[in-house]
This record gives sequence, C-alpha cells and structure tokens, in this order.
Amino acid sequence: MKAQEKLNRKTEKALHICVGLDSDINKIPGHLKTKSNAILEFNKRVIDATYKHAAAYKINFAFYENWGLEGFRTLEETINFISNEVLIIADAKRGDIGNTSKKYAESVFDYFKCDAVTLHPYMGYESVEPFLQYENKLNFILGLTSNPSASDFEKQKLENGKYLYQEVIVKTNEWNQKSKNCGLVFGATNNEELKNNIDSFGNMPILLPGVGAQGGSLEDVIKIFYSDKKNNFIINISRGLLYIDESENFEAKIKDKIIEYNQLVEKHIP
Amino acid sequence: MKAQEKLNRKTEKALHICVGLDSDINKIPGHLKTKSNAILEFNKRVIDATYKHAAAYKINFAFYENWGLEGFRTLEETINFISNEVLIIADAKRGDIGNTSKKYAESVFDYFKCDAVTLHPYMGYESVEPFLQYENKLNFILGLTSNPSASDFEKQKLENGKYLYQEVIVKTNEWNQKSKNCGLVFGATNNEELKNNIDSFGNMPILLPGVGAQGGSLEDVIKIFYSDKKNNFIINISRGLLYIDESENFEAKIKDKIIEYNQLVEKHIP
Repeated sequence: MKAQEKLNRKTEKALHICVGLDSDINKIPGHLKTKSNAILEFNKRVIDATYKHAAAYKINFAFYENWGLEGFRTLEETINFISNEVLIIADAKRGDIGNTSKKYAESVFDYFKCDAVTLHPYMGYESVEPFLQYENKLNFILGLTSNPSASDFEKQKLENGKYLYQEVIVKTNEWNQKSKNCGLVFGATNNEELKNNIDSFGNMPILLPGVGAQGGSLEDVIKIFYSDKKNNFIINISRGLLYIDESENFEAKIKDKIIEYNQLVEKHIP
Repeated sequence: MKAQEKLNRKTEKALHICVGLDSDINKIPGHLKTKSNAILEFNKRVIDATYKHAAAYKINFAFYENWGLEGFRTLEETINFISNEVLIIADAKRGDIGNTSKKYAESVFDYFKCDAVTLHPYMGYESVEPFLQYENKLNFILGLTSNPSASDFEKQKLENGKYLYQEVIVKTNEWNQKSKNCGLVFGATNNEELKNNIDSFGNMPILLPGVGAQGGSLEDVIKIFYSDKKNNFIINISRGLLYIDESENFEAKIKDKIIEYNQLVEKHIP
C-alpha cells in the first residue's frame, strides 16, 4: 500500500498522533531494564498499547545507532513488530550526493522497509532525488525545525525576501509534482509561523515535531489545520507519551494518554 | 591523540589524500566478489595498500548501511582494521535536535570510534553542539558541497549579501572557538569559489570532495592552498582510486596511484 494511503486511512479517522520511538534506556521503567533487550521489550509494549490509536510511528534512528550492532538489530526487530497497517517513518535525517543518497534510500526503504523518511535539504535536489524514485514512499523534507537554533540558518532571510525554510518549502512542492511522495517537517512551536505558512504546504503531508516537551500546543496545531480544512498532518509525540509513567503498568497509562490526545483532536473536528 | 594532531602529522609530510571508502560491491574486482565478506576483503586490501600514503580515511556510512546488519558489521571491522595513526572520518552527514545529535555523536565517536564526522548545518548550533563536546575529535560541517544542486540552497544569496554556505562558514568559525575541533567540507569543483573563500576558513581543516570523478583538479586545489600558505586540508578521492583496476593485482595499482597523487602534491610544495 502507498505510504500516503496508509496515512490517509488514519487521518480520515481523525488519528493524527505519531508515536516517536526515541527509546532511551535511562528513561524506560526500571522493571524493564534488567531484560536482555530492554529497549525492544519497551518498544513492543509501547506499540501494543498504541497501534490502534496511532497515525504513525516515527523511529529516531540515533537512539538505536548509539548502541551499534545491537541497536541496529533492535531497530530492525522494532520495525518488524509494527503492524503493516501503520506508517513507519525512519527519522534518520539523511542527505548526501546522488550516488550516496541512493544507498541511504536502499537502507531505509529496501532493508529496513520503512514507509517514509526524514531528509536534510541542504545539498539540494540531487540529495533527495534517489528517495523520490520510491514512488510509494513518503519523503519528509526538513522545512522549519522545532529547535531554537533553527534561527541560525533556516530563518535566515534570502535576497528574494523569503526565509530559507520557505525556499525549501517552495522547492519541495516542485519535487512533489511527479510522484506526490513528498512531505514536510514543520516545527509546531510557534502558531503564527504555522498559520503564515500553511497555505504553502499544498496537499503535502506535514510532520510536526515540537509539541509537548518542546513547548508547542497540540490543540493549537489541530485548530490551525482544521480551520484551513486540512487533515494531512501528523503530530509527533515522543517524551510526552513514552515516559509519562515508570510503574509496571506503564503501558496502560500510555494507552490512556494517546486516547486522551485523540479525544483532544476529536473536539476540534469541524 | 587529538584528531587534529593525527592530521597534522600527515600534512606536515605533505600527505593530503583522503581515501574515500565508498566501497560498492558492483565495482570491486570480480575475483573478490565470491568471498564471504567481499567488501571487507576489498577494504582491507585498499587499506594495506594505502595506509602509509594516506592523510586520512573517509568512510561513507551509506555504503554500509544499505546492507543492514551485515553492513554495520563490515563498517565496524573496517574501522578496527585501520591503523590508529590515521584519521578516520565518519562521512555520515548527521544532524538533528540536541538530544538526538548526542546519540549520533555517541554512535560515531564512542561506538564506532571514528576521529571525525561530517555534519549537516541546516538545524543550526544545537544540532552540532553535542559533537563539539568531544574536544579531541574533528567535526566537518558541510559548507559548499560538490554537487550541481548545491545551488538550490547553499548558493542562495542571503539578505546580508552572503551566500548561505558563507554564513555557514562564519558560524562554523564561531563554533570552532572553544575547542578548535571544527572543520569544513568545501567542494573542489570550482577554483574561483575556493580562492574567494579560502581566507574565511581560518586555520580550520578543510575536507575537499569533488576531485576526480566529480571534475575538480587536484593540482589546482593544492596550488590554491599552498599559495595561501595553508596546509590544513585533505582532498578526498574515492572513485578515482578504488576502482581504477579490476585485476587480481589491483592493490598494487591503487598503491601506485596514491603515490602518484602524492608526487603531484610534492611538486607544489612552496
């Protein structure tokens, strides 16, 4: 199934929460830490608790790569454990010259079998093109990120009057023409920025980090998209879901929490 | 030993060639393809042939990640095989928000034990800062890359009159102040660009891709640096070294070739 269709099936049911699997051994419940593969155990429980309620899973590759070989195995097993019905985003933030990006695309799409990926735009079209060849996948280009130092470059004003991130959005729209397989990462930390740019997104899916631990408001984001009659968006929540409870019964708390998030969304359905 | 010191010991001997291990199963000599780990076998022979003559090795992570677990094992074994005397650059082009970049830094520096890394600047200071914490390592920030679509964003003119990549160079100079552990990637495809920007590099080490298969001239680059009295630079060569011969005696040809490159360098020692 095309990645965008997988996502549509969720957003049509007003499911917009993307579960960010930034699984950190220092933050998972204590009773799991003694297990032989604690992170995998944790992930499986989080996935079991959330898969009916999640719009997507975003797997932050860094949190696996730091464990080396063992981490890559956990990454692979985590992906295999997720239902084929739910979009899996490789949050790997790759991007290199063409022949190298081709290998990265093979890694995330052919080997790890993810449905989508996040990509750095800095090196331009050629760095993205090998990913675009995968027509059934989704490629989320970094537009505006949710960290304060986004101002260093992303918010530099260009001679043409646009911010750099806005130029990235323009180009991403062009890259999206052929196969409709592009999306954008757009930090949800500032409502005005989101309102001012939402029209430039077209129909591309938007992945919004920055809600919860990074300060953005879930309800504000939903209101802004719905009032613009758009529902092709997912809001990533990692720390605000994974580490809310340390008890042996943490899965139930996570399940309650994602249902609570979904109820917040439903309140605003037009 | 500090990464910069490792590099100094080579550049003082006029060694400036960085061997790019973009090892591709489709391009290695046929007689190796039947080996159980052909890429590792190939890498070991390339390393044996070049380690006395190379200034550094640049390992392109994409060419290992596309093989999944097996690739990561090859990556690890390749790194372990390289002499501790020679700088190893993880050409991984990472960059993410702070808590995530921290994990990527742990991966390339603590787990894989590389001496240096290449980084995307797009997300700004916080995305680089966890790497800067490693005072003895080197962090090569992407300035101007060697691919044609560098014009998409890197060569966008900013309101302040600079190109984006020049603003990246300015910021990298600031990031370099504390621990002198930053460098720049600067594509060697255009002599004028190199001449116009060389003063902005300060004393930071420069990693130059784009010589050979991508069209830049080795001798031009050397002349430009030497005439500016700078020797803190390395020129990456991958395809122009790894795949020059398909015979069973390919190692000898690679050794001859890197010696030939070094002789070209020596011709221009001031």
